[in-house]
Amino acid sequence: MFVKFLGTGHVLPGTKVTNTDFLNHTFYDDNGEVYPMEMPVLLSKFEEITGIGERRYARDEERASDLGAIAAKVAIEEAGIDKNSIDLVITAHNFGDMDKGTGRTDILPSLSSRIKHLLDIRNDSCIPFDILFGCPGWIQGVLLAEMHLLAGKAKRALVVGCETLSRAVDPYDRNGMIFADGAGACVMELSDRPGILGSAVMNKAADEAYYLYEGVSQRPGEDIHDRFIKMKGRKIYEFALKYVPDAMKAAMDKAGVEAKDLDKIFMHQANAKLDHAVVERFYRLYGIKEIPENVLPMSVNWLGNSSVATVPTLFDLVRKTEYEGHKVKEGDTILFASVGAGMNVNAFVYKM
Amino acid sequence: MFVKFLGTGHVLPGTKVTNTDFLNHTFYDDNGEVYPMEMPVLLSKFEEITGIGERRYARDEERASDLGAIAAKVAIEEAGIDKNSIDLVITAHNFGDMDKGTGRTDILPSLSSRIKHLLDIRNDSCIPFDILFGCPGWIQGVLLAEMHLLAGKAKRALVVGCETLSRAVDPYDRNGMIFADGAGACVMELSDRPGILGSAVMNKAADEAYYLYEGVSQRPGEDIHDRFIKMKGRKIYEFALKYVPDAMKAAMDKAGVEAKDLDKIFMHQANAKLDHAVVERFYRLYGIKEIPENVLPMSVNWLGNSSVATVPTLFDLVRKTEYEGHKVKEGDTILFASVGAGMNVNAFVYKM
Repeated sequence: MFVKFLGTGHVLPGTKVTNTDFLNHTFYDDNGEVYPMEMPVLLSKFEEITGIGERRYARDEERASDLGAIAAKVAIEEAGIDKNSIDLVITAHNFGDMDKGTGRTDILPSLSSRIKHLLDIRNDSCIPFDILFGCPGWIQGVLLAEMHLLAGKAKRALVVGCETLSRAVDPYDRNGMIFADGAGACVMELSDRPGILGSAVMNKAADEAYYLYEGVSQRPGEDIHDRFIKMKGRKIYEFALKYVPDAMKAAMDKAGVEAKDLDKIFMHQANAKLDHAVVERFYRLYGIKEIPENVLPMSVNWLGNSSVATVPTLFDLVRKTEYEGHKVKEGDTILFASVGAGMNVNAFVYKM
Repeated sequence: MFVKFLGTGHVLPGTKVTNTDFLNHTFYDDNGEVYPMEMPVLLSKFEEITGIGERRYARDEERASDLGAIAAKVAIEEAGIDKNSIDLVITAHNFGDMDKGTGRTDILPSLSSRIKHLLDIRNDSCIPFDILFGCPGWIQGVLLAEMHLLAGKAKRALVVGCETLSRAVDPYDRNGMIFADGAGACVMELSDRPGILGSAVMNKAADEAYYLYEGVSQRPGEDIHDRFIKMKGRKIYEFALKYVPDAMKAAMDKAGVEAKDLDKIFMHQANAKLDHAVVERFYRLYGIKEIPENVLPMSVNWLGNSSVATVPTLFDLVRKTEYEGHKVKEGDTILFASVGAGMNVNAFVYKM
C-alpha cells in the first residue's frame, strides 16, 4: 500500500509587501552598526542575492492557525470528503500563533487543536498535534502521517504547514526581508496506486543546532526580552549545499528512482540562488551537468520564505494552475525536499 | 514485538516553593477584583482543593531543555547504551524554553534539537522533533515512538517531557500556584517480551479547545501583550471526570487487561481530588467500588503540576525508589493516563 494526496490547498496572505516597502527601514549589522550602504543599493543587492522581490504578510487580524484552517478547508473540499472522517491533524510551524504587535508566541492549545476547532471537526478520534521541525516541518508531517496511515493508526490525515514569520522578524535586521507568511495543507490516505515511494531525513545538532535561532534585535538599546528569528546565512548556505543533495539522493535510492525520471522538484523556497545550487549539485550526483528545463518551479521571488508553508503552497499552485509554465499530471514522479532549523533536512519521492 | 522502556530518568528542579511563599501575592478574580479572602485562608483552601502543598521551580539559569537533557542523561545512563545509538528524540512541552523574567517562549530550534545538542549526540540519522499535545504530550510521545519502533523507522527512541510553567504563570492568578517545573525522560526499544500492550487517545476541540489557553493577566492594567497559562478549572474538572475513565478503559480493552489485574496507575498529576475521582470512576466501570490500596502513587502534593513532566517523573521515582510505599517490579501491569490542553486524553497499558 502507498500513501497518496487526496487534496491539497494553500492560502496567499492578503498583504503584498515589496522590497521598496523597506526603503525607510534602518538595518544594523551584527556589530550593532548601521549598514553604510544606501538603502536602494542594499535592496537591490538583497534581491540579487536572494531572488526575493516581494512577499506576502497575513492581514492584521489573522493568525497562523487561521491561515492554516483556510488552506486545510481548500484541501478538504478538493478531497471531497466528510471533514469528520479525518482522524489525524498534524500542523507544522515554528512560532505558533503570534498576534500582530505582541511579539509573543502562543502555542497553548496546539495550532492543530485550533485548526480542528476552526474546521469544526467533531470526531473525538481525530487526534491533533503539532510538530516543531524547522522549515522542513510540513514534509516531516507528511512522513509522520504516512507512518500513521501505514500502521493503521489513522485512516485519513490532514497535514498543515502555517506560519506568520512577519511577526517574528526584527525590523532592524535585513535578513528579515527574506521571511513571509503563508499556509499550505494536504489530505492523505492509503491507496493501492503508487504515492509516496521513499524518503530520507537527517539532522545535525552537535555544532549546527543554532544556525537558526531566536535572538535579540540587531539594533542596540532595543528591549532585550524581545526575540526574533535570526540566521547565520553563510553557514546555512554551506550546510544546505553540503547535505541536501545527499538527502535527496537517499530518498531517490529508497524509491528506486533515477534523476532522469524526475518530472518536478519542489524545494523549500529559501533563496533562489541556494535552491538552484542545491539542485544543480543533486543532478551532478547522477552525472547530469545542468538542471533539466522545466523541472524546478520557484515562488520565492514573489512569496518569500514562509518556512513550512513554501512547499505545500508551491505544490498546490502547480497542481491546480499552469504555474509559470509548470504543471504536474498523473504518473509524474516528483521529489520534495527541505532544509531548516535544527538543522534538519528531509526529502521524499512521490508518484502522482 | 513489543516496545519496552530501557531506562527512565527525571530531574527535581532545584528551587522548592511552598504555599506560604505566596503569602505576599495578591490574587485577582476573573472580574479583575482582588479576592476578598485573607491570604492564609485562600492558601489553605487552595491546598484543600488541589492537594498541593509545595512545588519545584527551575533555577534561574536553567531552561526547560536543560532540565530535559538532565533527565535524558539519567535515562540513557540507566539504559547503558551508547547515546549515539539513539535515532529518534521526541520532546513534549507547552511553552518551549522561557528565559526567566522574559515572558517569551523560545521554540526555534526545537527543544529536541537543543537536547540532542546538549547530549552531544552525533548521529545524523537521529531525528529530533517536538510535539505539542498539552499535558498528555509525554505519553503521546511514547506512543509516537512506539509507532516508529514498530514500523522500523527507528531502533532506539528517547522521549522527553520538560516544562518550566513557573515562567508562564500569572503572578496575580491563584491558579498559577498549581503549576510547577520538571522533566522526565525514557529510552525505548523493541523487545520480544511484553511492554506496551494497548493504548487509546481522544480529543475534543469543537467546544473544548480553549479550556486551557494563553491569556492576559488577571490584574487590570498589566501589559496586554504578556500571555500566561489560563485555565477554566471547573470545566476541566468535569471534562476529565467524564472522558478520562473511558479512555483508560479503552486502552485496557485493547490490551486485554482487566482492572483487577492492574498493579499501578500513573495518572497525570493535576489535582489530587480530580485524580482520585477519575480513578474511582474508572474502577466503577468494572464494578469495583473503591480504589484498591496501593495502586495510585501521587506526587502533586509536593511537586505540583509540571504538565508533561508529571507522569515520567512519578514513574521514575516509583521504579527506582521505594516511593511512599510504592514499588513496581517485573511482570507488573501498569496503566498510564493523562488529560490536558487541546483537550486531549490518552492512556496506555504497560507490562513491566
